[in-house]
Amino acid sequence: MDAIEVIVAKRDGGELSAAQIDWVIDAYVRGEVADEQMSALAMAILLNGMNRREIAGWTQAMIRSGERMDWSELDRPTADKHSTGGVGDKITLPLAPLVAACGAYVPQLSGRGLGHTGGTLDKLESIPGWRASLSNDEMLGVLRAAGAVICAAGSGLAPADKKLYALRDVTGTVESIPLIASSIMSKKIAEGTGSLVLDVKVGSGAFMKTPERARELAETMVALGTDAGVRTVALLTAMDRPLGRAVGNALEVEESVEVLAGGGPSDVVELTVRLAREMLEAAGVSGKDPADALRDGSAMDAWRTMVGAQGGDPDALLPRAAETMTVDAPESGVLTRLDAYAVGLAAWRLGAGRARKEDPVSAGAGITLHAKPGDLVRAGQPLLTLHADETSRFERALEALRGGYEVGPAAGETLPLIIDRITA
Amino acid sequence: MDAIEVIVAKRDGGELSAAQIDWVIDAYVRGEVADEQMSALAMAILLNGMNRREIAGWTQAMIRSGERMDWSELDRPTADKHSTGGVGDKITLPLAPLVAACGAYVPQLSGRGLGHTGGTLDKLESIPGWRASLSNDEMLGVLRAAGAVICAAGSGLAPADKKLYALRDVTGTVESIPLIASSIMSKKIAEGTGSLVLDVKVGSGAFMKTPERARELAETMVALGTDAGVRTVALLTAMDRPLGRAVGNALEVEESVEVLAGGGPSDVVELTVRLAREMLEAAGVSGKDPADALRDGSAMDAWRTMVGAQGGDPDALLPRAAETMTVDAPESGVLTRLDAYAVGLAAWRLGAGRARKEDPVSAGAGITLHAKPGDLVRAGQPLLTLHADETSRFERALEALRGGYEVGPAAGETLPLIIDRITA
Repeated sequence: MDAIEVIVAKRDGGELSAAQIDWVIDAYVRGEVADEQMSALAMAILLNGMNRREIAGWTQAMIRSGERMDWSELDRPTADKHSTGGVGDKITLPLAPLVAACGAYVPQLSGRGLGHTGGTLDKLESIPGWRASLSNDEMLGVLRAAGAVICAAGSGLAPADKKLYALRDVTGTVESIPLIASSIMSKKIAEGTGSLVLDVKVGSGAFMKTPERARELAETMVALGTDAGVRTVALLTAMDRPLGRAVGNALEVEESVEVLAGGGPSDVVELTVRLAREMLEAAGVSGKDPADALRDGSAMDAWRTMVGAQGGDPDALLPRAAETMTVDAPESGVLTRLDAYAVGLAAWRLGAGRARKEDPVSAGAGITLHAKPGDLVRAGQPLLTLHADETSRFERALEALRGGYEVGPAAGETLPLIIDRITA
Repeated sequence: MDAIEVIVAKRDGGELSAAQIDWVIDAYVRGEVADEQMSALAMAILLNGMNRREIAGWTQAMIRSGERMDWSELDRPTADKHSTGGVGDKITLPLAPLVAACGAYVPQLSGRGLGHTGGTLDKLESIPGWRASLSNDEMLGVLRAAGAVICAAGSGLAPADKKLYALRDVTGTVESIPLIASSIMSKKIAEGTGSLVLDVKVGSGAFMKTPERARELAETMVALGTDAGVRTVALLTAMDRPLGRAVGNALEVEESVEVLAGGGPSDVVELTVRLAREMLEAAGVSGKDPADALRDGSAMDAWRTMVGAQGGDPDALLPRAAETMTVDAPESGVLTRLDAYAVGLAAWRLGAGRARKEDPVSAGAGITLHAKPGDLVRAGQPLLTLHADETSRFERALEALRGGYEVGPAAGETLPLIIDRITA
């Protein structure tokens, strides 16, 4: 077999055989298939697609390229959640300890942010002392102690996906549903979870701008999970506006702690509880209701144990940005629109995100929202507070926000928080 | 500007701007755009196409990546011919000296064979002493002495095309009409010829299998040449069966010399004379008719001068393969079909061609055809003689020929030798 044969088959609209897929993934990891060959194949896949059988084979081949974790020695079922990423999407932080408090183990491998969406690990790293990198043994120790662990994926998990993702990132071949779905699911299946809930975001701040594309991605991923023996369900949720009232790293940790303390913005609470119920149902765990675990402090206990077990001080004061600036409502009326992408881009420019993998992020930078779409506002009332380490960052953040919010006479159209539920 | 922006524009079906094309070609030659980015772009171009303006810009950018030759100090017009390649296509060998004998200069930069089609330089190198690599000054010297020169393109000519062609060769992105046309025309325009005749082959032994695809390629190239100020015309010619009666390196030189001596197979003579007339007309040279120059020995004189000026001995005995084997007619009747691809593949396996650029070729290997489609044959009469340096090569050559020829009760359908003529 050779790379050209596989590329030409897909280029000409054909279906790749199981043997071709297995060979090309394995040979790519071994360096026998060159980057320039794999990127041509990725572009052919992006433009000509893959069917369900091909995507499943591609995913399995990426899983086989590395280790597969195994939690069978644990005495309770495991559940995991994956979000396709959004603005203000801190849900993993309260969710993992909440589900743990309700009786399932949550081994959550997370990533860092790139572009306008934040990363779970970046947020948690604003807690002094907290460590993202754990050995498999340390991970198991935290899981046993707290019921939940959130950490970085080790390099042994789906190395083919790591190599391919880095390649797609620089070759304009990211936006392919078969490649996105197999990338996400290869990591999640290799992670060894028994059940998985996917939060597929829809809207300007999300990777999928329309419910149609999001549904296609969700259906593809649910099928992949199900075929691999993982009980998988997906929710399509709104990302036309930011989630909650905080966007940034430390700012989102604070909001997450509010939710764990029984407070917090209603949309964050609603989505966290809904995802927790889905995870528990998928894991087959019944008992405590997540809403109760937020009220009775058991979710907060799990959070404090989890943060502490990873070297973090749950009582430490979180970093604050040195400079702030408010953006006021231009007139009185209803906030009709607060665009997720504009807010995400502004937060990124304030220092909360990174442009390249090796860049640092600011723990304190970000945006606080004082109103959400549908809220009544008065002219001159603060709509947003921008936080940054240097005042020089405000100008480009304000530019990003231009046209990103609107005050009008009547409420505008927004997506329902939970748009749809996709099952096998 | 960055590579991803350019890739994504073409991936999403957009038109590349002149600035994007100039930038991406220049940055690719400088190494700023990586191979894996250019191959993704090439695949997007192959699948989504380029319009006439984009192809012209792409060609010009490749020309600007290197030197452009200039023959304006010569006292007669220059004319050149390019064939898209076929089996038994030795036409350049008699054609260049023939056109020179009729009054135009022919500065012919040629290539080596790869795969089942032969290369002009490989054929000429079977002449003892003959050198393909000349400096620009040497090239001019041979031109002045003989009126024609056939040599290898220097590395300074369209280096972007060289780099891109090598990349396309390993990434399944060869079969794109915009990329094929710009590759051929960037070299031909940079070569500095004033007029150009394109011989676009059609059929199983050609790159373009159908007249439709060949016409599209021819029209694209004629437009490119015309836009660049080169008088350009194209012929579509038959490559469903081999050209002439010899396929191989030394074997084709011998047949070319027969044509220059006023003999040779009628199809080779007809195509050579027709292409010579087209070249002279495009160059605006009138005077001696090519058919006369074959009869009166002036074309042969130009050939002998040209070969001698490049170190070759025109009187030397050419290498012969040590082993031969005949393939006989299975029954009596008409040879209905003799497939160009099957014969080309068999000659390649006999040693006449190379699988990789760095492989040597055998000077003596190849195939002699004793009958052409339409000829009457008797059972047991030799149809083909195979020539190879080792008998071990015959088996796989015979395999290639299986199903490649047919004897039947009545003549089969073949393409007319000259199918069409394409002008601006």
